[in-house]
Amino acid sequence: MIHDPTLRDGHHAVGHQLDADQLRAYATAANTARVPVVEVGHGNGLGASSLQIGRALLDDATMLTTVREALTSSKMGVFMAPGWGTSENLTAAVHLGADVVRIAAHCTEADVTERHLATARNIGAEAQGVLLMSHMASPDRLAEQCALMVKYGAQAVGIMDSAGHYLPGDVIERIHAIIEAVDVPVIFHGHNNLGLAVANSLAAVEAGASVIDATARGFGAGAGNTQLEALVAVLDRRGFDTGIGLREILSAADVAADHLMKAPPSIDSIAVAGGLAGVFSGFKRPVLEAARAEGVDAIDLFLALGKRQVVAGQEDLIGDVARQLKAGSR
Amino acid sequence: MIHDPTLRDGHHAVGHQLDADQLRAYATAANTARVPVVEVGHGNGLGASSLQIGRALLDDATMLTTVREALTSSKMGVFMAPGWGTSENLTAAVHLGADVVRIAAHCTEADVTERHLATARNIGAEAQGVLLMSHMASPDRLAEQCALMVKYGAQAVGIMDSAGHYLPGDVIERIHAIIEAVDVPVIFHGHNNLGLAVANSLAAVEAGASVIDATARGFGAGAGNTQLEALVAVLDRRGFDTGIGLREILSAADVAADHLMKAPPSIDSIAVAGGLAGVFSGFKRPVLEAARAEGVDAIDLFLALGKRQVVAGQEDLIGDVARQLKAGSR
Repeated sequence: MIHDPTLRDGHHAVGHQLDADQLRAYATAANTARVPVVEVGHGNGLGASSLQIGRALLDDATMLTTVREALTSSKMGVFMAPGWGTSENLTAAVHLGADVVRIAAHCTEADVTERHLATARNIGAEAQGVLLMSHMASPDRLAEQCALMVKYGAQAVGIMDSAGHYLPGDVIERIHAIIEAVDVPVIFHGHNNLGLAVANSLAAVEAGASVIDATARGFGAGAGNTQLEALVAVLDRRGFDTGIGLREILSAADVAADHLMKAPPSIDSIAVAGGLAGVFSGFKRPVLEAARAEGVDAIDLFLALGKRQVVAGQEDLIGDVARQLKAGSR
Repeated sequence: MIHDPTLRDGHHAVGHQLDADQLRAYATAANTARVPVVEVGHGNGLGASSLQIGRALLDDATMLTTVREALTSSKMGVFMAPGWGTSENLTAAVHLGADVVRIAAHCTEADVTERHLATARNIGAEAQGVLLMSHMASPDRLAEQCALMVKYGAQAVGIMDSAGHYLPGDVIERIHAIIEAVDVPVIFHGHNNLGLAVANSLAAVEAGASVIDATARGFGAGAGNTQLEALVAVLDRRGFDTGIGLREILSAADVAADHLMKAPPSIDSIAVAGGLAGVFSGFKRPVLEAARAEGVDAIDLFLALGKRQVVAGQEDLIGDVARQLKAGSR
């Protein structure tokens, strides 16, 4: 089952500035292609629009209402990371027609999802739990954290390769471990920093994952997500039925290319360094700024941040590490 | 061992219009990164510059001389497809300093390489043989054709996924079959139509292939080639030593992005359809033209051409198939 966060993760690529016509055009095309779930929202999820992270052009309610009107068969999904979003945001989203609710936590902090997964279940939404930056925890740890989320009420659980760090073998090992630990569908969400998002998603499916995130033309943060229309073609060749029409999903991808983005995501050198180092792609802008300010190389800075295992929320460390690099090179 | 046709396959993406400054800038950067072989020439190889296929900005001799001057440690490679190129072209290229000579044939026509492989050996070049559109032949047939090329003198042989059609399992099966049949290094050259070029190249290496083609930012025909700098990072993570400096290859990729291309290759819907159908990406322009002329859908036309198993040189069939599609839809 394909879960399509084009209108959520893609928001990262355009500073969260999609307008109602853009949301409507893509949601309509995805609905025609029989995409099971169309996820929408600020790139960082419900409630995240802010000066610090970036203000979205539209508020959550307007985004949800617009997409809801365009969907006749596809379900509508939302994403929420506790800290940025609250249970109130979640409840409001479900009242506006969100069918599927994703609650996200750092890979070792599943406990923050407990209250929100319960809220989602109580108000009748389909509740899912996902672990961010999942390469930073062992397969066993991920399995244990996923099992916790199932205990909290999640009806599907899984992992996000937020930094685009995985090779196919890494994905297989993790999906196997999670499948052993839970009895609900397992989710995989890839990023393309090392050019492996489609292959990693195929590996996840072959290892038994059954909910795969993918976006039109790979529209998403940094090097982009798993490219939806390519994945549909690949799964079709491997005999997995996604229920999505190939002709229609190629048209939806064309709508995304023509209406949502200036250019499709590409894998630049910063993206490769971020994938190799295992650093969140959202760090690109502050890393480039800190590298310029301190006169150090941005790629060296990415690799140094990887060694420090920085995670989202630790943006203030970037300047420190840049200054250490500069001092070290003297 | 990485073989880098950025300055040959990339030529397809810019109508064969790279100038001497562009060739020099990239060759210098690749040489600094210790890329083993830098291949240069018209996209279709030696002797191919023509009105019909597309005239290159520079003649073969100017391209080779320019790149030769920039390389101090990397070898220089050339590509030749009999029919477009001749033994005279080959001899001239070796006299201008080509170290490695690739002779290409359609996947079932290895016999056309015989004379040219012999020529290459006789004049002291390293001779390699590659099979184009290799998804159109069975693993056993490819192995048999590769063995023929070894008999003709090839010192490395292998397959090109010209249409970007393979899944990793397809590659593994074919590389295994070829390795069983020959005792020389085996070559793999991928295209990214289904988003799998890096994964297919990794699969080829794990199956035992030892010469992998990859280009900076994936610069190449259609959806592009295996992205060189991503592959180097991936092979490094898997413990395969390419001898290439990561920092330097990322810089070379930046040079390619800044100086060779308007935008890096991306996987558009036509590319996905071409990969799925197994149709050569060079057909994109004539397919778009025929679709427009006959008022049929370009993607439907690509899929129909795939069913007809058309190959390069059969461009005249495109109009026929477009007219049949139009007639069939009435």
